[in-house]
Amino acid sequence: MHILYAPNDAGASEWITALTAAVPEATVSVWDPEGPSVGADVAVVWGPPKNLFTREPGLKVVFTRGAGVDSVLALPDQSASVRIIRLEDAGMGVQMAEYVVHELVHASRAFGKLAVAQAEREWLNLPATERRDWPVGVLGLGQLGTRVAQVVASLGYPVAGWSRSPREVDGVECFSGQASLNAFLARTRVLVNVLPLTPETENILCRDTLSRLWPDAYLINVARGHHLVDQDLLDLLDAGYLAGASLDAFRVEPLPIDHPFWTHPKIRITPHNAAMTLRDESIVQIADKLAALARGETVGGTVDRQRGY
Amino acid sequence: MHILYAPNDAGASEWITALTAAVPEATVSVWDPEGPSVGADVAVVWGPPKNLFTREPGLKVVFTRGAGVDSVLALPDQSASVRIIRLEDAGMGVQMAEYVVHELVHASRAFGKLAVAQAEREWLNLPATERRDWPVGVLGLGQLGTRVAQVVASLGYPVAGWSRSPREVDGVECFSGQASLNAFLARTRVLVNVLPLTPETENILCRDTLSRLWPDAYLINVARGHHLVDQDLLDLLDAGYLAGASLDAFRVEPLPIDHPFWTHPKIRITPHNAAMTLRDESIVQIADKLAALARGETVGGTVDRQRGY
Repeated sequence: MHILYAPNDAGASEWITALTAAVPEATVSVWDPEGPSVGADVAVVWGPPKNLFTREPGLKVVFTRGAGVDSVLALPDQSASVRIIRLEDAGMGVQMAEYVVHELVHASRAFGKLAVAQAEREWLNLPATERRDWPVGVLGLGQLGTRVAQVVASLGYPVAGWSRSPREVDGVECFSGQASLNAFLARTRVLVNVLPLTPETENILCRDTLSRLWPDAYLINVARGHHLVDQDLLDLLDAGYLAGASLDAFRVEPLPIDHPFWTHPKIRITPHNAAMTLRDESIVQIADKLAALARGETVGGTVDRQRGY
Repeated sequence: MHILYAPNDAGASEWITALTAAVPEATVSVWDPEGPSVGADVAVVWGPPKNLFTREPGLKVVFTRGAGVDSVLALPDQSASVRIIRLEDAGMGVQMAEYVVHELVHASRAFGKLAVAQAEREWLNLPATERRDWPVGVLGLGQLGTRVAQVVASLGYPVAGWSRSPREVDGVECFSGQASLNAFLARTRVLVNVLPLTPETENILCRDTLSRLWPDAYLINVARGHHLVDQDLLDLLDAGYLAGASLDAFRVEPLPIDHPFWTHPKIRITPHNAAMTLRDESIVQIADKLAALARGETVGGTVDRQRGY
């Protein structure tokens, strides 16, 4: 087995060492942007090189070093028989949940105003936050979205979730399918997006959907930049329909220096770090799945190309 | 029955109306700083007037509009037979838990650095936060402290709690008694104080205790200002022993405008609003407890004068 580790970044050597230790029967090499084919049958990718499949036609299994697989599905020259396997949780669910709680509480408890008050040495009297005034809606009820919804529900916020196909989550009001999307939006003040990016979900955060939320709504996007129509968000913020937004993912990353999001007073930006890959957890999962595949078993996280995730 | 509502503040008229509706057999009046005795047998207080018991010698039951009772116990002219009853949770536990999670995550996920990076349009690459690097210790395992510890544990942080007498909380490593305090401090990076204020706990957050924490420790004080020796905190922050502090309670409130906490770059200040009294929940609890007392039953939250809480 030859495992090609494609993110040629600062942490690559630690990944190579740890992958070699976890899968001792494999040769492990790092992607060389200028190099020839290494005859890899397995790849671990993140922000994959455009010519991955062109140069490595022998690839049979591709692991993504994160939950999203849209960038791999978009690559040319891949056979439909290549198995794409996304990372399942591996420590990302809890990170995403705490990120969302942080941004939700920042909004619901007015921590922005409190920071301004401290700068002005003002002892600010604020009314108590009533949870009924802050219904949270989670778009996407996969592993990450479910974890987010459950943690927010445990803090007493009214929580609903929306998914393509019907789901049941304890303590979460579940909506599913296109027909129920408007009802889900209409009962939501804080909208949290944890959807996979597919042709169906691209641009789902737009003027039509965002304007159906409660007044003074707040958007938290921890999924993909292509879910959001940037200009629609700016227009709704400036028109006072939305109170603010916390954005972790962008159409172009790093976010270009002249993008208006950087300096908008109602937008909080984080550099796509809401849920970061934890190397040790990820490598255990990859090694376990390779062993399961060798035994002919099915493995979780295998992408359905039809569905797009 | 005559119920005297002593916080003569902006929300007093709503409290009087709601108390009257909840306890229809009682006369309800608001404390008049200049007025005569009204012959009250029950009082609801917060930051009680110094002459409460002097002017109202007939008081038999005093409810506090919060979890702390130190200010009532300090009043002169009270008989040891006056029953002091603190508010039990009434929506405060979940508020305090989310406040603590917000401040914890602000520290562990470097949201301060991220805000600076946004202001500078910098796409900041930070290493992933490993939970093992952020052990949290909760001082005080009453109703509020237990809720805080459980929520933090549900986010995967290693959590320990310390209390005067032994407690057991699922998923929380429990320490108790003075003899184990140093061991508790030595395994803690983020110290959360939820203790009641008593002669034993006054000044517990001082140079000796705070310097026993992990390097780059963080203090979250959501209890009382008199738990903390202000100058010791400033010294330890400036010497680099502590990375920062989130303070919600102060020796003098509102915090005096010339206090160095306001402008210290490593201190985050909130105006004693980590857990705010929710009127409806509180009044239901007061009415229920008055009914239970009338039936001769014992009620939760009754203060042990010996213990001080």
